[in-house]
Amino acid sequence: MKILHTSDWHLGRQFHNVSLLEDQQAVIEQLIQFIKKNPVDVVLVAGDIYDRSVPPTAAIELLNSVVKRICNELNTPMIFISGNHDGAERLGFGAKQMKSAGLHIISNFDDMLTPVVIDTETAGEVAFYGMPYNDPEQVRFSFKAQVSTHNEAHQLLAGKITEQFNASQRNVLISHCFVDGAIESDSERPLSIGGSDRVSHEHFLHFDYVALGHLHQPQKKGEDYIRYSGSLMKYSFGEQHQKKGFTLVELDHNGFVSAEHVELTAPHEMRILEGKLAQVIEQGKTDPKNEDYLLVRLQDKHAILNPMEKLRSVYPNVLHIEKPGMLIGVEQELAQAKLSRSEVDMFKDFFIEAQDSELSTEQEQAISDIVKQLSASSQKKVKN
Amino acid sequence: MKILHTSDWHLGRQFHNVSLLEDQQAVIEQLIQFIKKNPVDVVLVAGDIYDRSVPPTAAIELLNSVVKRICNELNTPMIFISGNHDGAERLGFGAKQMKSAGLHIISNFDDMLTPVVIDTETAGEVAFYGMPYNDPEQVRFSFKAQVSTHNEAHQLLAGKITEQFNASQRNVLISHCFVDGAIESDSERPLSIGGSDRVSHEHFLHFDYVALGHLHQPQKKGEDYIRYSGSLMKYSFGEQHQKKGFTLVELDHNGFVSAEHVELTAPHEMRILEGKLAQVIEQGKTDPKNEDYLLVRLQDKHAILNPMEKLRSVYPNVLHIEKPGMLIGVEQELAQAKLSRSEVDMFKDFFIEAQDSELSTEQEQAISDIVKQLSASSQKKVKN
Repeated sequence: MKILHTSDWHLGRQFHNVSLLEDQQAVIEQLIQFIKKNPVDVVLVAGDIYDRSVPPTAAIELLNSVVKRICNELNTPMIFISGNHDGAERLGFGAKQMKSAGLHIISNFDDMLTPVVIDTETAGEVAFYGMPYNDPEQVRFSFKAQVSTHNEAHQLLAGKITEQFNASQRNVLISHCFVDGAIESDSERPLSIGGSDRVSHEHFLHFDYVALGHLHQPQKKGEDYIRYSGSLMKYSFGEQHQKKGFTLVELDHNGFVSAEHVELTAPHEMRILEGKLAQVIEQGKTDPKNEDYLLVRLQDKHAILNPMEKLRSVYPNVLHIEKPGMLIGVEQELAQAKLSRSEVDMFKDFFIEAQDSELSTEQEQAISDIVKQLSASSQKKVKN
Repeated sequence: MKILHTSDWHLGRQFHNVSLLEDQQAVIEQLIQFIKKNPVDVVLVAGDIYDRSVPPTAAIELLNSVVKRICNELNTPMIFISGNHDGAERLGFGAKQMKSAGLHIISNFDDMLTPVVIDTETAGEVAFYGMPYNDPEQVRFSFKAQVSTHNEAHQLLAGKITEQFNASQRNVLISHCFVDGAIESDSERPLSIGGSDRVSHEHFLHFDYVALGHLHQPQKKGEDYIRYSGSLMKYSFGEQHQKKGFTLVELDHNGFVSAEHVELTAPHEMRILEGKLAQVIEQGKTDPKNEDYLLVRLQDKHAILNPMEKLRSVYPNVLHIEKPGMLIGVEQELAQAKLSRSEVDMFKDFFIEAQDSELSTEQEQAISDIVKQLSASSQKKVKN
């Protein structure tokens, strides 16, 4: 049996005020083309399908077209669980009515305990249990149980599910959680503060495969069969070196056989460029991937006017600029020289950029006087 | 064949800051109980299922439980169209996947041209065409047609549908529009300004039954078989005398047989009470329906402190107060006496209400002086 395990689509996500919907569509298109050529028995999406509980209309339309193509046209069932970004009730509308068309949206505990059973020649009956994302308070409330951490909540939920096991079936779990010891990325929203969101992988040992969502880096944790597929695409510059895609899993009558990461490529990659402004611009002139979403770290030591405009002449999708070089310069000068001197220097840089000429002696004197005056008055305030 | 025609549920509506969801749930419960005792072949909801394009989660949960009970438990198909209050794309998510469970949500023109066909012994095959609400711009854009009014848009859409007719089938249309000459209520949101939203009933003559939504008063227009079911319940005080409910329609092999209005009663009716404060309070003490949602028109001629608090001691759900009596009093005095005199009177009323005693002669003099002073200074300003 072939299982396509994906998660964290975050449809409708904005990145530095840019909509990622077209990139998301293009990446999902690759996933659909893969299924066309390499049919699978089921597609699992382990939560965070949308980026927020009330997703934009365009994200809903995209998901609608995707389920139409995968469930209806490719005749491949899909199982979704709600993640911490999804609005469970909103996502779950019509879930009961969609089941017969092979679209299974598991967003509440009742549905959690009724597995989706898929029967194949290669693995027999396999029961898919979806554990919708819930915080410990919801679990405590729903099961009237002493539960105060995510770990205790998962222990309880996993226990409820294993009680349902049918000995003649293999069992797959879909869950959205933070398994202890796994690697974070900086585009995930913490489930709770201070590490209390961590869950032991040991609750999951009885399953034949565990399809996890939440962490954006593909990885396995504890056992070969307990895996994060990682997010559909990069959602932060910190993920620039992560290989995004989905996990292709194989099960047979005895359970887990193998898992393989299949790469997907977004039209715009997220990358970090470092260098002096002139170097970065020069490089951009011949960069075949010049439309990528970029964070540029400028190493110039002087102030630059309109660096975004200059960079975007070659890299149209620069989304953010950092200037570590310039900041180091200021700090060094602060240590070496008086504050008034350094601020005059800054102004001289600015004047050159803005006017294309240097300050006259009189102008420099005037600026210097003003800065001294301001500095004196602010020191007076500090003393008071 | 028995058709239950309803419309304008407006799930999630607020009325004077009060959620109507519990009332909506109770009224729909009556509708469900009716179907249990008197099975029907299909339930049509002619638009404005939700009150707004992004409905509150609780409204989504209510609709979800309703479709589960009607489609799944009572095994009765439902056909929805989107109205001007609904978010068509949002409502339409998963529509394709829900069809096999008997839930048909028609929210775009593609689905409009593919009828839901229901076959019964009593009427043979009946084709149900849903025309999702669209303004003329959307129709012009979608069909690349010269359309500038709602009437032209409906002519075109009805024409597209009648082209699809299969001679062996009866045909039912579900539409959300304002048929020319029909009676408005004050809880409908106008489709456009200045009467350009009116549609002739003549476009609909070729159908065997036309299930309309948008207008909140149950009524027929043009022909016996062209009908508004009216809204699920009252949504304004102006509708206090309207009989709310649904329309029960019968078709046979030759088409329309009969239509009957079946009444539904909300736990809280919307009513207007008129009288002096003391009378209204007296009446409230023995009013068995004292929890209704009320607009109270006070006929007292003097100012009253905290009338809402006083009324709510007997009628807890007074939502709005009008004081026509007091306003007439003020206007009359304005005409007869000087402004300064009338404001002193107002203050005397207030003082009695607040302190339970009358102004002393000195107090009255002081207030009168202040009012004169203020009045003189404001007249000075007007002259300047």
